[in-house]
Amino acid sequence: MSEAPATVAPDPALFDKVVNLCKRRGFVFPSAEIYGGFRSTYDYGPVGVLLLRNVKDAWWRSMVQLRHDVVGLDAAILSPPAIWEASGHLKNFTDPLVDCRVCRERFRLDHLDDAEVCPNCKSEHSFTEARQFNLMFRTYAGPVEGAGAEVYLRPETAQGMFVNFRNVLETSRRRPPFGIAQVGKSFRNEITTGNFVFRTREFEQMEMEFFVPPVESAKWYEYWCAERLSWYVDHGIPADELRLRAHDEDELSHYSSATSDVEYLFPWGWDELEGIANRGDFDLTQHANHSGEKLDYFDQATGERYVPHVVEPAAGATRTAMAFLLAAYDEEEVAREGQGKGEVRTVLRLHPRIAPYKVAVLPLSKKPELQAPALEVLGLLQPHFMCDYDETQAIGRRYRRQDELGTPFCVTVDFDTLDDGAVTVRDRDSMAQDRVPIEDLVEHLRPRLGL
Amino acid sequence: MSEAPATVAPDPALFDKVVNLCKRRGFVFPSAEIYGGFRSTYDYGPVGVLLLRNVKDAWWRSMVQLRHDVVGLDAAILSPPAIWEASGHLKNFTDPLVDCRVCRERFRLDHLDDAEVCPNCKSEHSFTEARQFNLMFRTYAGPVEGAGAEVYLRPETAQGMFVNFRNVLETSRRRPPFGIAQVGKSFRNEITTGNFVFRTREFEQMEMEFFVPPVESAKWYEYWCAERLSWYVDHGIPADELRLRAHDEDELSHYSSATSDVEYLFPWGWDELEGIANRGDFDLTQHANHSGEKLDYFDQATGERYVPHVVEPAAGATRTAMAFLLAAYDEEEVAREGQGKGEVRTVLRLHPRIAPYKVAVLPLSKKPELQAPALEVLGLLQPHFMCDYDETQAIGRRYRRQDELGTPFCVTVDFDTLDDGAVTVRDRDSMAQDRVPIEDLVEHLRPRLGL
Repeated sequence: MSEAPATVAPDPALFDKVVNLCKRRGFVFPSAEIYGGFRSTYDYGPVGVLLLRNVKDAWWRSMVQLRHDVVGLDAAILSPPAIWEASGHLKNFTDPLVDCRVCRERFRLDHLDDAEVCPNCKSEHSFTEARQFNLMFRTYAGPVEGAGAEVYLRPETAQGMFVNFRNVLETSRRRPPFGIAQVGKSFRNEITTGNFVFRTREFEQMEMEFFVPPVESAKWYEYWCAERLSWYVDHGIPADELRLRAHDEDELSHYSSATSDVEYLFPWGWDELEGIANRGDFDLTQHANHSGEKLDYFDQATGERYVPHVVEPAAGATRTAMAFLLAAYDEEEVAREGQGKGEVRTVLRLHPRIAPYKVAVLPLSKKPELQAPALEVLGLLQPHFMCDYDETQAIGRRYRRQDELGTPFCVTVDFDTLDDGAVTVRDRDSMAQDRVPIEDLVEHLRPRLGL
Repeated sequence: MSEAPATVAPDPALFDKVVNLCKRRGFVFPSAEIYGGFRSTYDYGPVGVLLLRNVKDAWWRSMVQLRHDVVGLDAAILSPPAIWEASGHLKNFTDPLVDCRVCRERFRLDHLDDAEVCPNCKSEHSFTEARQFNLMFRTYAGPVEGAGAEVYLRPETAQGMFVNFRNVLETSRRRPPFGIAQVGKSFRNEITTGNFVFRTREFEQMEMEFFVPPVESAKWYEYWCAERLSWYVDHGIPADELRLRAHDEDELSHYSSATSDVEYLFPWGWDELEGIANRGDFDLTQHANHSGEKLDYFDQATGERYVPHVVEPAAGATRTAMAFLLAAYDEEEVAREGQGKGEVRTVLRLHPRIAPYKVAVLPLSKKPELQAPALEVLGLLQPHFMCDYDETQAIGRRYRRQDELGTPFCVTVDFDTLDDGAVTVRDRDSMAQDRVPIEDLVEHLRPRLGL
């Protein structure tokens, strides 16, 4: 396993630029903004929802569609205490909290720089004893609140795979080594949120549990570490902004023999995108013991019965989307294009599979004689690619807008189109323009988009 | 607007057959089954998750990708009381509940056959006065429970579109008539759940809010009623198992001038898949009044300022998936095929876009000389289509299994393949078999799958 050397430095100014772009162009809005926003919760706007879908779909494609040893699952968010008792979350998924006796503010003990002085009111020695605060959201199902009606919002999607292990084994005709993959929302009542969509109470995960014969777990752990690191590079994050960091002994969970994080060089420094853990037989054994059901595998070829070990690559979809935006953000000086003068253009150099729109169709002007063929071209492309359509403002400004959305290609319909049946295809990165017959357009774009 | 006559009769036996198939083949598992199941909550298994994804993706494709007057959104599930106060949910989203004073069982008043006798303990006149029970799940964000920390799990996705109306208007360059679409989970603490995945506390919605000039709302309401009814037919539900039912005056919400339901003939009778409502300016006006923000539109062409009216097609993804399964389920007697004798085969005649797997690759036997080319064919198809791969059991039984999953095509690699470089393509519905060169396979299948 290799670690990339930290040759690149984080850029703190980049953070504000990307957050600003996200709001201005409709990637991300603060949730309930007209009511003053809501507790580090975010909504994904018209282009943000496409970006996030593309991140999740790219993961699903790599992890499920292109493999025959991984199947999918979509388990419920609401889940009973029995699951979280077996998993250990009810007891151990906690943060240590202290209260300031003077100002009554509450803090996470391990996030205090100085455990003697309250950072809010500056009182000294004012903290209570730390108490363990569980991070799971609790609610009640059915008409009566109280014991017996308790439900938890899952803090991770992983347990859904473990409790369904036998169901999947019996219905899917897979046998170890095989995996179960899931994309979905999880909820953690974090005391300290922040860094935009990096750490939020509601977030989306992409997790896969890979069940293997015990003797093969180290091999598969190495395999998934390499595979997952490559995934980010393959989808456009420069290799020198990524690293694989193995956990030290004292960072490891008691049941994990090895864990590595895929880290991205965020503007605030290296931080986690994904964890790959060798979890051993901890999870299946816990659920077998608590449920009384057998969660093992009988290998007919060898006559062996064993509890599979689990290698788990667990990624955050929302923070991965953020890393793609940060890595793609670029500013470059351009001489002159369309209506624009010499200027700095902002461009998101997103991988085509990740870019919200693949193509924007732009009639050169709003005149009806251009609108009709432009809408025809749009209708031709829409079944194949997610498209934007924009007919307002000067063409140069519309190119800039699409650059900021990361749209790989703009297709311009102009007055020549009425004569030659061709359109201008403009490349986002090089700004080069090609004249392409409308009838060849889909097949011209498809390979260039890698689709 | 036309109503299909109820010429077909519901089939109660069909329900059990489909529920059984769902469990046996990995469509749907009871949630937390190893712990005895959990309160009408369900997990979607390896084929169920594909089915559900296909339903949602087909909706997204029709509503967002193939149009340029609708954009997407993905708003948070956790939401503050202010939203639900403005929407009216805090006050009005309630069911009337009564308790039996004798056995202490709790009931929904409007679901009791006889309001005088407890259906549980048969006591007469034992009910308390009805009280209003709010159906929203409540939890607490941050380290302190209690007032000020209250959060609700959204009971519908719609409000996310209304509170983001201005954000979307300002960033997306759309103007009325235009829509905002969202797919996502919602939660309702239903007292009475049931009919498998039809009514569950956690469910998935596909909602679109279409904002129009007030004078155009009746026209767009008619448009969306017709459009949405067609969508189900286009994706494989027979027209005579669907109807559009206009609400009577006394069924309408006070703010709605017209509402129609798309209903499917479920085994228990006609029931709702989707509601299309003309909501007027109720939602934007409520949020404008409660937030103090302007939620209107200024039309530069006419110089008019108005609050757009909303036409809302709101569908249930999970119950739509169930309707697709019910409509697709078929049993037919077949003479003889592969290893099978004369028998009844079960087949899901799903639309190719909805079918979990598009293609199954099946080596005729497990011999290594067939496995290698079969895996090559699989690798060739996987980038284009979601594929299954199965090399165990007799070929006839594997065909039957794929029929039960609704897989439109099986591709069989046999010993002739080693000589002629061709495979047998078997059609799910006709069971006809074609010999197709491997190099032509993708282009042979693509149009037949309508992709």
